[in-house]
Amino acid sequence: MAYHKTDHRVSFGDCDPAGIVFYPRFFAWFDRTFHDWLRRYGGHQALCERLGAVGIGLMSADAAFRSPARDGDALEVRMTALDWTGRSLKVEYEIVCGDRLVATGTEQRGVFLVDNGRMIAGDMLRLKDIVDGGG
Amino acid sequence: MAYHKTDHRVSFGDCDPAGIVFYPRFFAWFDRTFHDWLRRYGGHQALCERLGAVGIGLMSADAAFRSPARDGDALEVRMTALDWTGRSLKVEYEIVCGDRLVATGTEQRGVFLVDNGRMIAGDMLRLKDIVDGGG
Amino acid sequence: MAYHKTDHRVSFGDCDPAGIVFYPRFFAWFDRTFHDWLRRYGGHQALCERLGAVGIGLMSADAAFRSPARDGDALEVRMTALDWTGRSLKVEYEIVCGDRLVATGTEQRGVFLVDNGRMIAGDMLRLKDIVDGGG
Amino acid sequence: MAYHKTDHRVSFGDCDPAGIVFYPRFFAWFDRTFHDWLRRYGGHQALCERLGAVGIGLMSADAAFRSPARDGDALEVRMTALDWTGRSLKVEYEIVCGDRLVATGTEQRGVFLVDNGRMIAGDMLRLKDIVDGGG
Repeated sequence: MAYHKTDHRVSFGDCDPAGIVFYPRFFAWFDRTFHDWLRRYGGHQALCERLGAVGIGLMSADAAFRSPARDGDALEVRMTALDWTGRSLKVEYEIVCGDRLVATGTEQRGVFLVDNGRMIAGDMLRLKDIVDGGG
Repeated sequence: MAYHKTDHRVSFGDCDPAGIVFYPRFFAWFDRTFHDWLRRYGGHQALCERLGAVGIGLMSADAAFRSPARDGDALEVRMTALDWTGRSLKVEYEIVCGDRLVATGTEQRGVFLVDNGRMIAGDMLRLKDIVDGGG
Repeated sequence: MAYHKTDHRVSFGDCDPAGIVFYPRFFAWFDRTFHDWLRRYGGHQALCERLGAVGIGLMSADAAFRSPARDGDALEVRMTALDWTGRSLKVEYEIVCGDRLVATGTEQRGVFLVDNGRMIAGDMLRLKDIVDGGG
Repeated sequence: MAYHKTDHRVSFGDCDPAGIVFYPRFFAWFDRTFHDWLRRYGGHQALCERLGAVGIGLMSADAAFRSPARDGDALEVRMTALDWTGRSLKVEYEIVCGDRLVATGTEQRGVFLVDNGRMIAGDMLRLKDIVDGGG
């Protein structure tokens, strides 16, 4: 079961001299899937305007690489869980190629506001309200 | 009319602080489309093995940026022309967002072989024969 | 002779399965060198504020790839010429690894303003005045 | 104290529409620093040949983003700890901009061999012997 998913065909230019995906690309595909999910609720820019935020950005991220992905592999990037707290949202991902697990990972995100010139994490539950309300 | 095309939804991470696609990304999407087209004929690696080549790589590339693309834009990347010569293949591209022209460009590619430790451009018409033969 | 230059050590992750630099990276290094040069005059953001612009961005770009670059190569990216016209700035680059020429290329840039919600190219000679004035 | 470090000036193209570094870039800078450190011992390719390996690649990676980095920031990427076990090497990183902590992170790496067409993690202590021996 996935909250949202995107498809990605691995291309030659995604891969390194060992012939496998250069690992920062997996994080870019997590991020792409998150932003694609936000489109259901108006997209990142419109949501930031509603929340008075400069970004729904990262506090931390991690990934485990379970099997290699290569040029031509048809990947599915799944958002498998959302864990809301007052100041953050934890998003879990898995990437599969057919039946094969390629990677799992997590992003911890905040709603960042500018306060006296400094970035601070605002109230994440306001984003949850928008999501629960359907847009 | 397009020989081949791929779809790409512009994501937040494809864009720069001006909010528009960081231009090297367009070249990555040209390259992705070329490699996706090669899959009809077995893909880059299998073709290189048939041709005794290390890569079907770039001699030159250019692009003109006609209108900006932003987070969420649904792009279609089209291969619009192929011009075969003995030592190179010129591939023409256009990128559109609906009716709007976003970018046009060209890649000049060679079939690169290693000869006495040096990369040289081999006979491109052997690739043309494979393509004309359908795989 | 170079107006400006930056150094870049090619890393494993810059390279593709053929073991050579994935070509869109060269354009990113042109762009990086241009932005580094802008720092002499306050940097991109401060210059855009002075010019009322949203970006000093691309109209077109091209490159010719003269010899391959690989993991560990110490590259020098040189801005070798600037050609100012009323609506654009043409910047020429060359990338060398020691005595060996790796790539040459060109960027055509405009000063982009937003006018009635549409991006247009503004007066480039106002940027030339700032550059000629030394900051 | 750092085992190794690299410098990186943040460029416009490293940043996203919020004006801060797009987070997968930090992982690319961890990886770049690791590969730069390998150059002391001959570099990734020569080490893989000695070890009969296809890559010294990733099992997992994580990062915490402590403060934003922007166009022009002069970053230092430091390898701060190495933890060797039989099948893996844990590498710790921190990224600073002057006195300010920007990010911390970890890579867990293996020496990957191909065994009956499958990638497996080989003996990491053979790499430790090379490093301890100085090359």
